[in-house]
Amino acid sequence: MNPIIAILSDFGHSDSYVASMKGVILSINPSVLLIDISHGVPRGDVFAGAFCLASCLENFPPSTIFLAVVDPGVGTERCAIALQGKNYSLIGPDNGLLALAAKRMSHVSTRRLENYALFRSKKCSATFHGRDVFAPAAAHLSLGFPFEELGAIVQNPLDLPWPPLVQSSTEIQGQIIYVDHFGNCVTNIPEQACMKLQTSLKQNGVLQVSSGNKKMPLLKTFGAVPAGEALAYVGSEALLALAVNKGNASSKLQLHVGDAVVVQQIST
Amino acid sequence: MNPIIAILSDFGHSDSYVASMKGVILSINPSVLLIDISHGVPRGDVFAGAFCLASCLENFPPSTIFLAVVDPGVGTERCAIALQGKNYSLIGPDNGLLALAAKRMSHVSTRRLENYALFRSKKCSATFHGRDVFAPAAAHLSLGFPFEELGAIVQNPLDLPWPPLVQSSTEIQGQIIYVDHFGNCVTNIPEQACMKLQTSLKQNGVLQVSSGNKKMPLLKTFGAVPAGEALAYVGSEALLALAVNKGNASSKLQLHVGDAVVVQQIST
Amino acid sequence: MNPIIAILSDFGHSDSYVASMKGVILSINPSVLLIDISHGVPRGDVFAGAFCLASCLENFPPSTIFLAVVDPGVGTERCAIALQGKNYSLIGPDNGLLALAAKRMSHVSTRRLENYALFRSKKCSATFHGRDVFAPAAAHLSLGFPFEELGAIVQNPLDLPWPPLVQSSTEIQGQIIYVDHFGNCVTNIPEQACMKLQTSLKQNGVLQVSSGNKKMPLLKTFGAVPAGEALAYVGSEALLALAVNKGNASSKLQLHVGDAVVVQQIST
Repeated sequence: MNPIIAILSDFGHSDSYVASMKGVILSINPSVLLIDISHGVPRGDVFAGAFCLASCLENFPPSTIFLAVVDPGVGTERCAIALQGKNYSLIGPDNGLLALAAKRMSHVSTRRLENYALFRSKKCSATFHGRDVFAPAAAHLSLGFPFEELGAIVQNPLDLPWPPLVQSSTEIQGQIIYVDHFGNCVTNIPEQACMKLQTSLKQNGVLQVSSGNKKMPLLKTFGAVPAGEALAYVGSEALLALAVNKGNASSKLQLHVGDAVVVQQIST
Repeated sequence: MNPIIAILSDFGHSDSYVASMKGVILSINPSVLLIDISHGVPRGDVFAGAFCLASCLENFPPSTIFLAVVDPGVGTERCAIALQGKNYSLIGPDNGLLALAAKRMSHVSTRRLENYALFRSKKCSATFHGRDVFAPAAAHLSLGFPFEELGAIVQNPLDLPWPPLVQSSTEIQGQIIYVDHFGNCVTNIPEQACMKLQTSLKQNGVLQVSSGNKKMPLLKTFGAVPAGEALAYVGSEALLALAVNKGNASSKLQLHVGDAVVVQQIST
Repeated sequence: MNPIIAILSDFGHSDSYVASMKGVILSINPSVLLIDISHGVPRGDVFAGAFCLASCLENFPPSTIFLAVVDPGVGTERCAIALQGKNYSLIGPDNGLLALAAKRMSHVSTRRLENYALFRSKKCSATFHGRDVFAPAAAHLSLGFPFEELGAIVQNPLDLPWPPLVQSSTEIQGQIIYVDHFGNCVTNIPEQACMKLQTSLKQNGVLQVSSGNKKMPLLKTFGAVPAGEALAYVGSEALLALAVNKGNASSKLQLHVGDAVVVQQIST
């Protein structure tokens, strides 16, 4: 079974940057299986990249190596790191990009990438560590290079704060953390928090979801409302999300990352 | 020879949805070869997805499994289905997405996907059957899982009507059915219909193609007219198409899906 | 070790054109490894495609076959060609697309693709040589088909002129040749030319980079200036480039391909 390297970046789809990383990897380990996660992360948006990476992590088979590059601080003092857990390894800049995925892994240890023997043999650039530092490290790990020899232990890799929830017995306040390709607005409110409000509903009570002055029901799927109408649903990542059936909730309802979202018990 | 799963969706390129499907597939069958057809199908546009799938189908080697997800009705009563023909298998929602490809296959039988043992082991979501239903089914088929055990036979999977042509001895009326990345406008008028008009031309007669008040000659390729000028040609799918040499016919000539197109014999 | 075919085009990401090429290749050689370079080359922009191809070439392992299709003249008299060098093979139209990559290869010979036995067996289209001519040729080469049997030798494949530099002992004038996904503006000024000016600096002298009335310092990486400020740097291709830290230099500074860029010694 060939080792898998799954790649995420904000490099877009018009240049050859991603291909350069793949060429470097295949030059080191020609039998690796390369999978693209996304290269459409908004430029420099570390939170969006971290969310994207964490969202798909556990769908991959054990031993997958994740190579993630959303790295606006490339060439500055930020570290290059690798994380190794029971099932997965992560490689990228120490800017929070790996933090949400790391929380879904067990037995995680972190090392700096400072073994220069692994870096791209020609002069290492100051602006493309994806090609010159991260890709070679991923390729060598895929060949069985010992994780401990990558560099020194990192005790506290940079964390990425998950936006806090405000909860009462009848209400949860959260916010939109990610807008997807369909305009669906994913929030930081987990399914369990909604379920708790649901099970404590009084007779004639229902849950209402709102953002600003837009109100919508909590339903199972898009088609539960007519085309063009808004709904809230628990999305594929077990987080509350807002959508418009056959429409774009973000543009139609003017919803954006950071907007407050409230789930509350109301009486019908 | 590793089995091929070719994937089409409207999931776009910014999120990790496609990667989640691939991770699920590789977790079931690590030796499958994954090929992307397109993930840039316009959101929820079942006809565009169906056309895109059918256009590339026969270029793939026998035994290829096609996994297609353009599924605005996900989680509603629409069925999940698989089709098996002599050369290819198709998996996706029963909303017409597979219908144009199916017409190019022989000896097709259709089954519902209702063998829950094959679904993603964690709770099946109501909004991401691509990951939870279709991808696992494709992966199991690629391992040789018997088609007959997917579920009950479907007698009449949803058809997708091919827009009708109006034909006389001197004229064909059709319409634009697809606009590609270059702005080339593909019609529902097949090459043979044009050839028939061509061969019955009178002396001094030529074929003229028009849409609205825009008229253009029928030629072999783009470079047969100067840059910026319009032409009609028989495209790579053996369908009449409208283009502007080194330009975008859709935006320059204001042509869109559904616009009428006429091929007629005229005298010079 | 499976042979690699790396593919570049301006076909975009919404249609099935790239998938059709891949299906054709896999039908001929099912054990090839397919890598996408980019399909987001601006439509018909031969220079951008040539630059993109050349930029990643040497990151790939020896024996990689590059299949490049930016081909606005498809179906006209332009030739289809293949180049073979010591390490790499290139396949594409003879319109300059392969020229910049060829300059990075040694011992290059060029052949026309005119062995019709290799073409796609069904009727060869006049508008999709990517699928019907180039992809089959690449697939057959990957199987070991003799390069010499592709067709006649081409003595002078079309060259792509590298925009000239104007140099004095204190100044270099060049221009922007490529704008990437981040809005970074790559110039035709090589690192060595900058280094030469740098080492001949007088006491109190520094290098200043300017384009129109925008002036910026030459630094190592983006983070060397505050967010939103402009800088020049030597990019990953050893060419001078202009950027805005955490911003888009092209849109913020109104810089475009063809704009003049000057590096000059000034006194502080």
